[in-house]
Amino acid sequence: MNVRIGKRVQHFRTVTFDAATNRVQLIEQRLLPHRFEIIETNDFRETALAIKDMIVRGAGAIGATAAYGLAQGVRAFQGSDLAKFKRHINVVYETLKTARPTAVDPVNAMLQLRAEMKAGQSVEEQQALALAAAEDFANEDVRHCREIGEHGAKLIRNGARVLTHCNAGWLAFVDYGSATAPMYAARERGKKFHVFCDETRPRCQGGTLTAWELAQQGISHDIIADNAAGFLMSRGEIDLVIVGSDRTLGRTGEVANKIGTYTKAVLAHRHGIPFYVAIPLSTIDWNIASGHKIPIEERHEDEVLGAWGITKAGQREYIRVANPSSHARNPGFDVTPAELITGIITPKGIFRPQDLWKNRNRLSE
Amino acid sequence: MNVRIGKRVQHFRTVTFDAATNRVQLIEQRLLPHRFEIIETNDFRETALAIKDMIVRGAGAIGATAAYGLAQGVRAFQGSDLAKFKRHINVVYETLKTARPTAVDPVNAMLQLRAEMKAGQSVEEQQALALAAAEDFANEDVRHCREIGEHGAKLIRNGARVLTHCNAGWLAFVDYGSATAPMYAARERGKKFHVFCDETRPRCQGGTLTAWELAQQGISHDIIADNAAGFLMSRGEIDLVIVGSDRTLGRTGEVANKIGTYTKAVLAHRHGIPFYVAIPLSTIDWNIASGHKIPIEERHEDEVLGAWGITKAGQREYIRVANPSSHARNPGFDVTPAELITGIITPKGIFRPQDLWKNRNRLSE
Repeated sequence: MNVRIGKRVQHFRTVTFDAATNRVQLIEQRLLPHRFEIIETNDFRETALAIKDMIVRGAGAIGATAAYGLAQGVRAFQGSDLAKFKRHINVVYETLKTARPTAVDPVNAMLQLRAEMKAGQSVEEQQALALAAAEDFANEDVRHCREIGEHGAKLIRNGARVLTHCNAGWLAFVDYGSATAPMYAARERGKKFHVFCDETRPRCQGGTLTAWELAQQGISHDIIADNAAGFLMSRGEIDLVIVGSDRTLGRTGEVANKIGTYTKAVLAHRHGIPFYVAIPLSTIDWNIASGHKIPIEERHEDEVLGAWGITKAGQREYIRVANPSSHARNPGFDVTPAELITGIITPKGIFRPQDLWKNRNRLSE
Repeated sequence: MNVRIGKRVQHFRTVTFDAATNRVQLIEQRLLPHRFEIIETNDFRETALAIKDMIVRGAGAIGATAAYGLAQGVRAFQGSDLAKFKRHINVVYETLKTARPTAVDPVNAMLQLRAEMKAGQSVEEQQALALAAAEDFANEDVRHCREIGEHGAKLIRNGARVLTHCNAGWLAFVDYGSATAPMYAARERGKKFHVFCDETRPRCQGGTLTAWELAQQGISHDIIADNAAGFLMSRGEIDLVIVGSDRTLGRTGEVANKIGTYTKAVLAHRHGIPFYVAIPLSTIDWNIASGHKIPIEERHEDEVLGAWGITKAGQREYIRVANPSSHARNPGFDVTPAELITGIITPKGIFRPQDLWKNRNRLSE
């Protein structure tokens, strides 16, 4: 998406690849929203570190980064010995895979690359195929997000007030995002609307990343405390909710997403406000039969007990907010049942959550 | 309540009065939870400033502080000229009244004192009556909170997991608090239970003040992000909710309280979890006929856009968390309808919210 740098407006993806220098280029997301910077990784180990250290985060974005990282590692191999080359590929693959052990997107992306590479006879041919496949992977991610946007844009009426939670924006993908894609598409069609961003404690991705994204695109928005959405709904100030999903159960239509999503769905349901979840197909889990079986990560308590931000002196610092002798519980995700979800916005169209399973052939390529 | 100071445990009220020195003694609540300090005000103007600057906050606590401040001002008058004395009292009254213009408790407290003072013939007699009335006011606040605790303690079963929101604790009153009073009473009866404190963004009174209170009393507790309560309820980890109230409508049973209270009530209702509101009688508004008529204060956006806490270097600092170019909406309160409230815990017993009106004679002395 566009980023304003001084007076210029320039288009960026979260991750790109420079074939000439064999470097992966990433937005340094840990500096956002306070500073915009592109970093380059020199080799696949640095790329793996960038994933591990959360310079890049979000399912689509780390998938594409792993794909580029694999191509980067593969292309760095010198020689023509196919057996050595294969061992080298395994090292690259394992290094990138273990950078974020619970994520599925890097693994899926890299397996796709490795399958494509098999058509090559020589090291050189396979190197070329790896690069082409990585570019395909990134471009496909962009295309899917655009398709989500096209389907979802219809839901945003002129003048609408839309609530979103956390960051399912372009920063989490290669471009456009999932929950934000309908907003960007509606904007392209000339619609005017207002977005409320839940700040999304404890990590505040809504108040930092989503708000930054919307500000860059010039979309009217306000940040609100997570506590405020219920009040705004009760006063008729929210018309539509669109969120993303970390995992969507194809069998039941349940949606696992950032902690607090479920609460917003319960509130929207009470107020008769449509609640939509925007997803790329890769997040659909066709195996798990119940939301109760989704493992919910309990994250470090320091996230709840304090906050990261910029001091008056301009330093990025962590402050302890809470009572020093107290502890915190910090579940990272929750599960929203299908009955609270109006529709799932996918690249293939909008589906009732209960209808995912019967459309599984269309939705699982 | 008890406060641990080093190895000692000492009992404090939020506000007391030293008749010998004519000073009001206050817990410096702005330093909590990171430092516990008692400050003394030398005259009624300093007491008014302490209210204005939020050294003391909470309905009951500022009511008692204004009562003591009026007695302090009245007692500082020298001479026996009753006309001059009356003009002096008016100055004291107006100074304390305008310290927190929207609060009703200081006004009610001071009007009560002025009515009691009328029995005195001389300046000296009236000064003595003012002090006695201020002490009565503070003691009555304590007694009411104890009564709330006695009624509410029955609701907390051994092993219960109780959710509370914001700070309706002893720091907001003279002692015991409203929402916390049942917890302290249950604790005195030897019950074991666990409390989840919503951190209560944006001002985080749950994570700071309520957590500090519970830690001082040795009550098992965890702070959670406001986003997490819904998840914990969905996993059966919360048995009971008790919150306070800023204003309770006697005609409808609606409750205005800190932003986010309504959301917790909606969630509790969905999960069949009892939702109680603990209130002193002074917060009941017998006039307003609909929650929609309660004015909701829109507070400064900086509360949402950042946070206050302690840096690693030990400095209390405000950090900007959110995207620098974004703005925030910051409604301070919301309104919970009677249908979502299981019961209102008062010093006179527990009432269904719909039954407040027919019990108005019992509840309005």
